[in-house]
Amino acid sequence: MITLASDFGSPYPAAMRGVICRQSEARLVDVTHDLPRGAVRESAFWLRETLPTFPPATHLAVVDPGVGTDRGVLVGRASGHTFVGPDNGLLIPAARRIAGDDGVDWFHADPGDPASTTFHGRDVFAPLAARVHEVVRSQGYGALDAHDRLTPADPTTVDLPEATVEADAAAGTVLAVDDFGNVVTNVPGDFLDGREAVTVNGEQVPVAETFASVAPGEPLVTVGSHGYVECDVNRGRGDEQFDLTAGDAVRMA
Amino acid sequence: MITLASDFGSPYPAAMRGVICRQSEARLVDVTHDLPRGAVRESAFWLRETLPTFPPATHLAVVDPGVGTDRGVLVGRASGHTFVGPDNGLLIPAARRIAGDDGVDWFHADPGDPASTTFHGRDVFAPLAARVHEVVRSQGYGALDAHDRLTPADPTTVDLPEATVEADAAAGTVLAVDDFGNVVTNVPGDFLDGREAVTVNGEQVPVAETFASVAPGEPLVTVGSHGYVECDVNRGRGDEQFDLTAGDAVRMA
Amino acid sequence: MITLASDFGSPYPAAMRGVICRQSEARLVDVTHDLPRGAVRESAFWLRETLPTFPPATHLAVVDPGVGTDRGVLVGRASGHTFVGPDNGLLIPAARRIAGDDGVDWFHADPGDPASTTFHGRDVFAPLAARVHEVVRSQGYGALDAHDRLTPADPTTVDLPEATVEADAAAGTVLAVDDFGNVVTNVPGDFLDGREAVTVNGEQVPVAETFASVAPGEPLVTVGSHGYVECDVNRGRGDEQFDLTAGDAVRMA
Repeated sequence: MITLASDFGSPYPAAMRGVICRQSEARLVDVTHDLPRGAVRESAFWLRETLPTFPPATHLAVVDPGVGTDRGVLVGRASGHTFVGPDNGLLIPAARRIAGDDGVDWFHADPGDPASTTFHGRDVFAPLAARVHEVVRSQGYGALDAHDRLTPADPTTVDLPEATVEADAAAGTVLAVDDFGNVVTNVPGDFLDGREAVTVNGEQVPVAETFASVAPGEPLVTVGSHGYVECDVNRGRGDEQFDLTAGDAVRMA
Repeated sequence: MITLASDFGSPYPAAMRGVICRQSEARLVDVTHDLPRGAVRESAFWLRETLPTFPPATHLAVVDPGVGTDRGVLVGRASGHTFVGPDNGLLIPAARRIAGDDGVDWFHADPGDPASTTFHGRDVFAPLAARVHEVVRSQGYGALDAHDRLTPADPTTVDLPEATVEADAAAGTVLAVDDFGNVVTNVPGDFLDGREAVTVNGEQVPVAETFASVAPGEPLVTVGSHGYVECDVNRGRGDEQFDLTAGDAVRMA
Repeated sequence: MITLASDFGSPYPAAMRGVICRQSEARLVDVTHDLPRGAVRESAFWLRETLPTFPPATHLAVVDPGVGTDRGVLVGRASGHTFVGPDNGLLIPAARRIAGDDGVDWFHADPGDPASTTFHGRDVFAPLAARVHEVVRSQGYGALDAHDRLTPADPTTVDLPEATVEADAAAGTVLAVDDFGNVVTNVPGDFLDGREAVTVNGEQVPVAETFASVAPGEPLVTVGSHGYVECDVNRGRGDEQFDLTAGDAVRMA
């Protein structure tokens, strides 16, 4: 199985699918092609939240504002999964979460002489993902070591910020805003334990277990599906209500 | 085959796909993840129009404004198809259309102790769909009866409204607006038989067999692909032209 | 393998998938369902750029502003690929690029008596694609000739315009604007050879090899992944910066 993720929207993902289908009969499963455009850190968060749900697979991910520069081409190996994408940190949090204590083996791949300087998804990453997938499938996981175009690498990392939590207050950051407008912070969910309300950047908001605990259009904070405090609106958009976007500071008390 | 439908947009459907792929090698086919957000009745209409085109399959559908409340977890069985989703009416019209006179057997499933209160697509419905699919695949359709976590249920229903049609006039409702802006009413298509024009909420509009029968930008009413009267604009948006949205009353004469 | 492309957005592609799945177990791969709505020429460009990346397959494509009129139903055969769609030019450039010097054999199919006049994707093209795919798969490629509902056809063509290039200047056309806002012209990429800057409709812009060669928000022209000159903005939208959309004239010097 090869999973595909990108910020390409439409129709460029089709070219990646086509290129892979020419080289491999692997099952293709789309993660999404609507990752936040050019936003490596936010996209890395979404990949960390979604890729670990999959069984062992080759994960191709491309959010690549440095396309055409000398940024490296990265291949990773962890716990039966294989990762292929630009060496800009995109896949690091997902791979680390999947690997746990086992750690991840990272390699640089030779990009060759791609046909374009602007579409390495089609010209570099998709063919590499198909090739690597076939190596692992036919020769086993260890064969990646010997694969002549891979060399051990120390990858560029992207760190998702951690919140500072004290007994009475938390200073955090917005990790992402989802399609519903839910504001995903990095404040651990247990900050809400025993609280009936919190202030979010000074605004008092009820703590609720479910969206439907408050009236439609009303704000709430809850422990979201990522385990963090989310600032949401029942059947509305939390990002607009709280005026928050990815990367913003958020203070709760 | 497992079909997937939701109002999740991106990237949450990826987590449902991943969870299913961990439990089952079933083929996955996306219906759509852009069902009208939180709109159970409209989404039920779209599922009724699309799921019956499929061969027997397990159909997972999640539009779930009551997520985290005590709304039930529903499994249905009809004509070789299996349905999995929230017990809020979402899947009722589709299952009934597929079952026809055979009727549908409905069950409640034990939701267990889901990891989140906000993402039962990932934590409840996707693993349930995979499990139910495997039970049906390996032990046959009847095994669902004996499956220890299912109990017969009387599901919450959602009724798609029916139009009142007289010889000279019809009083109907907008069932949905599609991506093109076409306004799908519940007035049966044969209301247009023998008419060259009708009034729609007082505005006179030509009856046409095809979009291209009128000039680009011009309104028309036609028998749409669902068998109902649609209020459309050739290469334009009917919802804007007619100022109509899902749930609105529409009077034709 | 059957590939699917349309301008249907959501949820109508689901009905095409369902209809095909009832008739064929072929693998389905989505190209995109967000082709520019009703824009045959632009969509033909995107199909030409994506379908040739696939291995031999049946390619179903529907952008069909003439749905329900007497426009023909087209089937094409070239280099192991099969094409199914409306006879409006949509598939011509893609098929010609795939066929190269071998040429394409075109046929008209009998549309039968479709259930609707507005959704031939579901009622005509999807079942035809499934049927043709199964004929080719089970009886071999040549069996299409004898298939009783196909008759040789001279298809409607759509020509993608070619730029006029002189030593000092090029007069071209915008072929498409992609999801990133990149403006894809038809001026061949080698027009930029040896130039450090060009004027685009009078505005001076640097020539760059990669987006990242200019500061975020700054314009550039580059040889895009289609081999043509693109007018782009690093991490911004070229269409807004240059005020250009598909079909517009563009003069470079």
